Amino acid sequence: MGRERLRIAQVAPLAEAVPPKLYGGTERVIWWLTEALADLGHDVTLYASGDSTASARLVSCADTGLRLAGVNDHTAYTLVMLDRVLKAADTFDVIHFHTDLFQYPIFRHVAHKCVTTLHGRHDLPDYWPVFRNFPEMSLVSISDAQRTPMPDANFVATIHHGLPETLIPFSPEGGDYLAFIGRISPEKRPDRAIEIATRAGVPLRIAAKVDRVDRDYFEERIKPLLDHPLIEFIGEISDDQKPAFLGGALALLFPIDWPEPFGLVMIEAMAAGTPVIAWDNGSVPEVVREGTNGLIVASIDEAVAAVGKVRALKRAEVRRCFEARFTAGRMARDYAALYRRLAEPARPAFPFDLAVPA
Amino acid sequence: MGRERLRIAQVAPLAEAVPPKLYGGTERVIWWLTEALADLGHDVTLYASGDSTASARLVSCADTGLRLAGVNDHTAYTLVMLDRVLKAADTFDVIHFHTDLFQYPIFRHVAHKCVTTLHGRHDLPDYWPVFRNFPEMSLVSISDAQRTPMPDANFVATIHHGLPETLIPFSPEGGDYLAFIGRISPEKRPDRAIEIATRAGVPLRIAAKVDRVDRDYFEERIKPLLDHPLIEFIGEISDDQKPAFLGGALALLFPIDWPEPFGLVMIEAMAAGTPVIAWDNGSVPEVVREGTNGLIVASIDEAVAAVGKVRALKRAEVRRCFEARFTAGRMARDYAALYRRLAEPARPAFPFDLAVPA
Repeated sequence: MGRERLRIAQVAPLAEAVPPKLYGGTERVIWWLTEALADLGHDVTLYASGDSTASARLVSCADTGLRLAGVNDHTAYTLVMLDRVLKAADTFDVIHFHTDLFQYPIFRHVAHKCVTTLHGRHDLPDYWPVFRNFPEMSLVSISDAQRTPMPDANFVATIHHGLPETLIPFSPEGGDYLAFIGRISPEKRPDRAIEIATRAGVPLRIAAKVDRVDRDYFEERIKPLLDHPLIEFIGEISDDQKPAFLGGALALLFPIDWPEPFGLVMIEAMAAGTPVIAWDNGSVPEVVREGTNGLIVASIDEAVAAVGKVRALKRAEVRRCFEARFTAGRMARDYAALYRRLAEPARPAFPFDLAVPA
Repeated sequence: MGRERLRIAQVAPLAEAVPPKLYGGTERVIWWLTEALADLGHDVTLYASGDSTASARLVSCADTGLRLAGVNDHTAYTLVMLDRVLKAADTFDVIHFHTDLFQYPIFRHVAHKCVTTLHGRHDLPDYWPVFRNFPEMSLVSISDAQRTPMPDANFVATIHHGLPETLIPFSPEGGDYLAFIGRISPEKRPDRAIEIATRAGVPLRIAAKVDRVDRDYFEERIKPLLDHPLIEFIGEISDDQKPAFLGGALALLFPIDWPEPFGLVMIEAMAAGTPVIAWDNGSVPEVVREGTNGLIVASIDEAVAAVGKVRALKRAEVRRCFEARFTAGRMARDYAALYRRLAEPARPAFPFDLAVPA
């Protein structure tokens, strides 16, 4: 079965520290995974920016996260990081990449101990040539939906993200408003959230940041909709404010219009015991258990009806479902099982103790 | 001295075909180099997009140039191309990369036969970590100025660009207007060109495209300056129109405000016999021979004075200077000499025929 205590390299993007100072879903997941793997007793080395504070052994590959440092092109730093990982490859049982593409040609000769988690959307074909050309490199999808555009790629597992159990405590009571949280952007469809709330006659609180690229969309399409007594735009909120915001809600609205690869905010709401009303798209059917931790809808009419039905869901059951399926501990155990499969010495094609017929 | 006929791989960016359908300075230079190396009798294999029509043996690494095909991220296609080059590495004496970064970690074990020409500006530090980390990989700068921000990088030569001798024929007469050609952008300083022309009282013709990113700059800063009897904005011109536009000019104005790595338009003007009035920046002091093929200035006053002096330069001498220094044939001979140095078997550290003292 290989050794119990695995020597694992986690290779993070250099855009943000691990954990990130502000945004950075990928770096946050890497942080949670790294901590939970250490809790399981594994020996984790983290290749990341030098201002990372995860409890793994840190190999600093840039002084600080490159985005906040103002570095526009992260390619050079990432290639140098990968070269450092390569030089230490013999000291690891498994190398887990969270970088998208650069590692394929560099690590193909040690592909047996490598795995890459894809964190983004892959319905656009830009990356496909690499997945086709380096079939020996193993991939992990963060939802089954994420991999559907690339049925022939070498996916070895789907492993859903997970959060630390204590990050967002269970809130048994909930509240009377609908919650929307995320970026104000066309694919997140805050306009749908507003229409659902006003038609259902239930208050909506929108906790959202507006990126520069979405500024026009906000001004032209969303701002005119905010002037309604049921709608409250509270802007960006910090991680500290999230438990109260999510825990105090009747339900989270997740009316997405794109193939969401995972959707961390859904499991953040579930951790608080708050059910999710989500559009049938991307990972949603895998994360939401219809009638248990949320309701899946495909139209505004269905969403308005769901607001009426969502009070029937039991918040304790939503939390239980989170604890069973979406904790960082579960995520780390899934990855550890996968690592062990990779780290096992390959069996010879013919077992050497095969009894040769006389 | 190694073999006479070298087996050379040219590895082009996949953004544009070789030659490019529209823009693409790098791909144009690769085209000229490839043709001129073939003229010298070398065996050239070109890794490029499949719609390339250079006369080398083409290995198609994408159906068409990726920019016009609408592919946003060229990384995956480029990595797959590099993998194909790697598999054929043994069949080449030298591998010449025109891609910026990805080849370093992949080819370091065959670094002795590799060389990369840097086509962009390198005064920004984003790429430096790679040049520091892979010191065994040889670099060519397209001007001495280009390499000054990175004095420790492994530059093995500066090789100036060159054009086919017949591309832009000598125009003995010239004309009475100043020419500006390029993009309308803050670093090209069309505003300086306009001020120079109006103060000198000489007509200026501006042949320039306006990229989307420069649209605001054009509308706010340049358009208001165009309403002057001496200024004519003729928009974008084709390659076919260039010889007449450049050949009919009194001088080319090149009032740049950035460290131009080479500046093809300067040698295009010189091919026509048209001298260049250029700002002292980037490659300019290497390309312009003061008083022979142009005048170097550092202020609007100096540029206005230069317009008065430029008629004294002999157009035949400008052309002669082009033929001596900036033809594709000269460029190809320089590269071939470099390739031969790389392809030579390395001498052992101690010559094996060293007479050992008794």
